Amino acid sequence: MYRTHTCGELRIEQAGTPVTLSGWVQTVRKFGSINFVDLRDRYGITQLLFNESLQAQLDAQPLGREFVIAVSGTVAARTSINKNIPTGDIEVIVTQYTILNAAKTPPFTIQDDTDGGDELRMKFRYLDLRRNLVKQNLELRYRVNRATRNFLDSRGFMEIETPFLIKSTPEGARDFVVPSRMNTNEFYALPQSPQTFKQLLMVSGYDRYFQVVKCFRDEDLRADRQPEFTQIDCEMSFVEQEDILNNFEDMLKYIFREIKGLEFPEAFPRMTFDDAMEYYGNDKPDIRFDMKLVNLTNTVKGHGFKVFDEAEVVLAINATGCAEYTRKQLDELTDWVKRPQIGMSGLIYARVGADGSVKSSVDKFFDETQLKTWATLTNAQPGDLILVVAGREEKTRKAASELRLEMGERLGLRDKNVFKPLWVIDFPLFEYAEEEKRWVARHHPFTSPKPEHIALMDDLSRYAEIKANAYDIVLNGTEVGGGSIRIFQRPLQEKMFAALGMSPEEAQHKFGFLLGAFEYGAPPHGGIAFGLDRLCALLGGSDTIRDFIAFPKNNSGRDVMLDAPSAIDEAQLNELKIDLVRAPKA
Amino acid sequence: MYRTHTCGELRIEQAGTPVTLSGWVQTVRKFGSINFVDLRDRYGITQLLFNESLQAQLDAQPLGREFVIAVSGTVAARTSINKNIPTGDIEVIVTQYTILNAAKTPPFTIQDDTDGGDELRMKFRYLDLRRNLVKQNLELRYRVNRATRNFLDSRGFMEIETPFLIKSTPEGARDFVVPSRMNTNEFYALPQSPQTFKQLLMVSGYDRYFQVVKCFRDEDLRADRQPEFTQIDCEMSFVEQEDILNNFEDMLKYIFREIKGLEFPEAFPRMTFDDAMEYYGNDKPDIRFDMKLVNLTNTVKGHGFKVFDEAEVVLAINATGCAEYTRKQLDELTDWVKRPQIGMSGLIYARVGADGSVKSSVDKFFDETQLKTWATLTNAQPGDLILVVAGREEKTRKAASELRLEMGERLGLRDKNVFKPLWVIDFPLFEYAEEEKRWVARHHPFTSPKPEHIALMDDLSRYAEIKANAYDIVLNGTEVGGGSIRIFQRPLQEKMFAALGMSPEEAQHKFGFLLGAFEYGAPPHGGIAFGLDRLCALLGGSDTIRDFIAFPKNNSGRDVMLDAPSAIDEAQLNELKIDLVRAPKA
Repeated sequence: MYRTHTCGELRIEQAGTPVTLSGWVQTVRKFGSINFVDLRDRYGITQLLFNESLQAQLDAQPLGREFVIAVSGTVAARTSINKNIPTGDIEVIVTQYTILNAAKTPPFTIQDDTDGGDELRMKFRYLDLRRNLVKQNLELRYRVNRATRNFLDSRGFMEIETPFLIKSTPEGARDFVVPSRMNTNEFYALPQSPQTFKQLLMVSGYDRYFQVVKCFRDEDLRADRQPEFTQIDCEMSFVEQEDILNNFEDMLKYIFREIKGLEFPEAFPRMTFDDAMEYYGNDKPDIRFDMKLVNLTNTVKGHGFKVFDEAEVVLAINATGCAEYTRKQLDELTDWVKRPQIGMSGLIYARVGADGSVKSSVDKFFDETQLKTWATLTNAQPGDLILVVAGREEKTRKAASELRLEMGERLGLRDKNVFKPLWVIDFPLFEYAEEEKRWVARHHPFTSPKPEHIALMDDLSRYAEIKANAYDIVLNGTEVGGGSIRIFQRPLQEKMFAALGMSPEEAQHKFGFLLGAFEYGAPPHGGIAFGLDRLCALLGGSDTIRDFIAFPKNNSGRDVMLDAPSAIDEAQLNELKIDLVRAPKA
Repeated sequence: MYRTHTCGELRIEQAGTPVTLSGWVQTVRKFGSINFVDLRDRYGITQLLFNESLQAQLDAQPLGREFVIAVSGTVAARTSINKNIPTGDIEVIVTQYTILNAAKTPPFTIQDDTDGGDELRMKFRYLDLRRNLVKQNLELRYRVNRATRNFLDSRGFMEIETPFLIKSTPEGARDFVVPSRMNTNEFYALPQSPQTFKQLLMVSGYDRYFQVVKCFRDEDLRADRQPEFTQIDCEMSFVEQEDILNNFEDMLKYIFREIKGLEFPEAFPRMTFDDAMEYYGNDKPDIRFDMKLVNLTNTVKGHGFKVFDEAEVVLAINATGCAEYTRKQLDELTDWVKRPQIGMSGLIYARVGADGSVKSSVDKFFDETQLKTWATLTNAQPGDLILVVAGREEKTRKAASELRLEMGERLGLRDKNVFKPLWVIDFPLFEYAEEEKRWVARHHPFTSPKPEHIALMDDLSRYAEIKANAYDIVLNGTEVGGGSIRIFQRPLQEKMFAALGMSPEEAQHKFGFLLGAFEYGAPPHGGIAFGLDRLCALLGGSDTIRDFIAFPKNNSGRDVMLDAPSAIDEAQLNELKIDLVRAPKA
């Protein structure tokens, strides 16, 4: 037997008990003739005392860090109590021990502030996973997963597994495909989400479905995107938007309570997509702080300042309490908005002095009365700083949004321990894809338009006005979930496919099974999916989802530990009847 | 709002309550001026009464089967009570209703004994899933899943997700591969199991891991194999075989209790692989009945009966109480053992009469004294029938095993409501692959040999003798799980790879990450994986796992509902830099 107890379990009450422990050698210290070893396992650390009688054995093969050993001995009260750990009252007086496995010196220190770089820690991920920080992240993930299941089970949701080897229906993101050996020259696709399956389950009468499920998207990886990711995928029948919002708000409240011990007695605030764009410049507002965008366009035009006069929009934010910003700080902020990612030509500012006077970087064009209007509109008080950007609508709104977030960050208003959820509702049904020069579904082609907007689908010029029964749940400025009430009638689904430029034949080829299903008694239904990786990262106070995935891939989609993807045998290619198109030799 | 209650919820206590229900029209019956509708949802069936005032609306669009409707009305006591359903005391007097979606006539009846053939029901799987039988299967699956999680959570197991896009390491079954677009000419593989990842998690100190996880094998599909299937995958550190067996025996007992209300107060029986082969002719004995194989080889040789004299082995079973089998029945059994799948040249039998006399089909060669020895050896009593097969060892043992199962079936000894679990232990480490002319791992290359047999690995001639720390859990003659204590030291793992004919370079290329991990403090560990599909099928009393999978594939690996796999666009092939090798035109 390798152990009678874990390394996190023994207390002073067990003094005198003979025990066997197994674990990893965290540290070895020698005081006189006594060796002390901290033995670690998943559950904690226990101090071991090796007395003189074991010295010969220790000399023969000294214990090193990360050695795996099993020890037998007796629990004893400890002279120097360690109040920092639950086992700090005791130690185990070792009478015999076995080295189960030796260990080489790890390539980086296995500590919270490790000296290992990203790439090295990914290569030796199995060692990185030993670090307490990473372990806590994976434990949090498991607890979120468990809380989610417990909640959904209590509400009558049933987990149903949907297939991974499905059909490729390119629309939206790129599919990963899997060549079929048994069906030559044909391919499966890995699911981007179980969307159509969960809808079919509603048609089948399962009423409340969920699944914690891997999804796959072959996209060019931006920072912190993974080719495989996990969704909490849910669907309900006979519901309206309000039912979904209420049910999943309850779920998030349950998770906050279970994981963070936080209570949210009030309903989560809701904001329309249009308001989110107007006041925050994006569809996932971080409402941990105010600092709304204020539209100064009408106020500032016609004063001879060319930047404003030529702008489609002029937007301001009130950086509260920043009137004392130095010239250097303001120059630096100006450089910040001029970076290519933001792309503004400059930054205009106005300081509100202690006496209420307003001084701006464009005093030449605006007198104090005019500037005071800026202050009134932005609700700037003495001591505040008004920051203004101007230019083309979309770019400027995005820049103002980024500037707001940056100022929020600088002012310490984005505390990772504060959680502000927000429902964003009334999303547009379509968005215009500039590259493809066509309207695409903003959410996906199964999202229903607001009933009163269905008629607008006959008029291409009014597509931008059509709103959908679609909603996102945003947490601290990050979208953690989204969903919609679905189309459930064949004629409307056909209209939708047609609106997206699909011919009836193409629609039938790709989604014939769904159109067919809608003819055999499909109930009204809707659902939502949460990004588990992202949700865990936020709850864990991190920006990087990679920290919450046991074996993540790097930004090139590689698993550097496995060295995957990799070349496969010619025999495998032959069986699959595929050839590689190799890059021509230079 | 679509409903205030479900169709399974209303009781006599709610008489007089105004309610709204939604669901599917199960049946419509007309009595005089009254229309009765049975309305169905996931939770039950409620009778609706449409009185005369709604007749005009009903006439305008008659309700058909599987129409989806919402009705409002009042709960009333029912005159003709239906004791078969929980809502049978009441009906709802409908005052208004809406057709939410019409339905075409389904292509087969949505009933337990449907008139739909396999292929048709697979094509319209979303309708097949409406059948009560299928719904109960998926509910059972969810309950098994939930019970498993609850048990493992209570024992400190943590679910950790492992990746799906991994590295192809052909060994054992064929991998499904996924071409990488970002890493040209390279491929991911889909996991056949998370084996190496769970071992790495043990190296990382996670101590107790589980995952309910999809696995993939590109095998030629035999009946009732699926290319994707679900495992309950588990691993523990600092354990010996005994710990694993005890822990997962507890898990199965918990599942039996939760799902079937069955108690197993005794420990599950255990049998060595050698005994299983000796007494049952296979490694997964169905011990719901006895009828062990009895080896008559030494007894029957040398009596001039050529079939026995030339046989490697002669095996008998005692078909209890079958002495009265007619000539016709025995001829039929003889034909049965001569079928190509069984491949025996004939069947010998001996009847034990009421008076204890024994008459055989080979009386010419064996006198009554000799036949009485057969009866003694097989423990045949008056009224019993001894069945004997003879031939080459492997084939005959398999035939005897099949014959035993067939007789068990005919005698009604294989009751689907009786559950007899069995641990089979001490499996061989290797088995000889005739086609490849080499020794392969019987379980997988990470299984540890019995310590006392490690030395035999240096002698190829003794490979067959080497036993592994490997075990299967068998339920009613079906393997539902299996596992092993793993190798956790690099030298032994290298020795194992070498024994399997892998060069050090190949071992390093394929499994370098694991060999590396073993050098940094790997603990002793072991685990087990259960086939969830199979376990559910057994618990549900079915032979076909397909019945317990929401969207299964057919025997050609096709999803006939989706029509997958299918051809993909040239654009997709171009992006992936692969060409199809098309069959030459005839």
